[in-house]
Amino acid sequence: MEQKIVEQVVARILAEMCGEGQTPPGIPVGVSNRHIHVSAEHLATLFGQGYSLTKEKDLKQIGEYAAKETVTLVGPKGIIAKVRILGPVRNFTQIEISRTDGFSLGIAPPLRDSGQIEGSAGIVVVGPMGAVTLRQGVICAARHIHMQAADAQRLKVADGERVTVKLAGPRGGTFDNVLIRVHPNFRLEFHIDTDEANATELKTGDIVSL
Amino acid sequence: MEQKIVEQVVARILAEMCGEGQTPPGIPVGVSNRHIHVSAEHLATLFGQGYSLTKEKDLKQIGEYAAKETVTLVGPKGIIAKVRILGPVRNFTQIEISRTDGFSLGIAPPLRDSGQIEGSAGIVVVGPMGAVTLRQGVICAARHIHMQAADAQRLKVADGERVTVKLAGPRGGTFDNVLIRVHPNFRLEFHIDTDEANATELKTGDIVSL
Repeated sequence: MEQKIVEQVVARILAEMCGEGQTPPGIPVGVSNRHIHVSAEHLATLFGQGYSLTKEKDLKQIGEYAAKETVTLVGPKGIIAKVRILGPVRNFTQIEISRTDGFSLGIAPPLRDSGQIEGSAGIVVVGPMGAVTLRQGVICAARHIHMQAADAQRLKVADGERVTVKLAGPRGGTFDNVLIRVHPNFRLEFHIDTDEANATELKTGDIVSL
Repeated sequence: MEQKIVEQVVARILAEMCGEGQTPPGIPVGVSNRHIHVSAEHLATLFGQGYSLTKEKDLKQIGEYAAKETVTLVGPKGIIAKVRILGPVRNFTQIEISRTDGFSLGIAPPLRDSGQIEGSAGIVVVGPMGAVTLRQGVICAARHIHMQAADAQRLKVADGERVTVKLAGPRGGTFDNVLIRVHPNFRLEFHIDTDEANATELKTGDIVSL
């Protein structure tokens, strides 16, 4: 509720500041903490046969949610507990962590777009009913902007394009190579990881521009 | 030795690529991990009366060194052990941590230039012989470039100026508000913290440009 009001106020202020569609709208930031998308097979191993995820909170992207369930990542040099599962279940398991998390765990996941897990880093995932040894699936997610076709038209960008995002503030600058992802279920949001957020003092809900 | 060869090769290649002083030289990156500069008084409390620091390794900046000694930082939400002391002893104690470290400890240090600790965050520092409760002294160090007067002339910048640095690579872009610091004891080096390094995939020795 509060979040919705904030969004509406931000949208109104931006509309006022930008005039009637004269300049492209700002893009809200969404900071992604470390998380895991699980396959049905791995969910069964980690939580037991027939187990299904419990929704805790809807995410901004339509159909996506944070589950109540968490897992533990065990790497060669360290452990990270309480890593949130994002639902719904996917075709394959993918874990998105920051470079900092990689150092803690002792693994060096490649920088990849979501879904591109071929040859990525491995890890052991532990749940309350069992463990899965992944040979690949761990990535540092490359920053990207979710949007619908109407946003893409307004922002004059296309699905798959790489753009530069301008960041304001004392730790501002620009981020190059930001992937545009267009889909009817997407809502306008610039996804960065916690390293990118902490390095630039960006927080979820901050506004950036192309 | 190996590092020196790398530096020489990099310098030679850059000189070749840039021509004879046609374009400004590249600037090597130095990633600063969390560290503490201690006052003589606090050193005595932490390590005992009459204690002096033992040099472990010279830093690139002339006269600065990493000491053998480390301390433990204790915050309201977490602890970070083995935080390196950098010598020599200073007039006041200053602790430089990343935003990520701040979250681990449960404190929110302001982004500041080195030396500007008025009203910064507090922390408890623990050594083998005692503890110090700092009311202020913890900062997130604002990124900056150390250089000598000759470098400043070549790069056409002045002490105290804020410049924009260009970062290459898949996580490239620009960093605004980079402070220029000119001093005879400085050697050309772009200092960033571990959050900035991890967010951009920069490592010590990488080359950036203005």
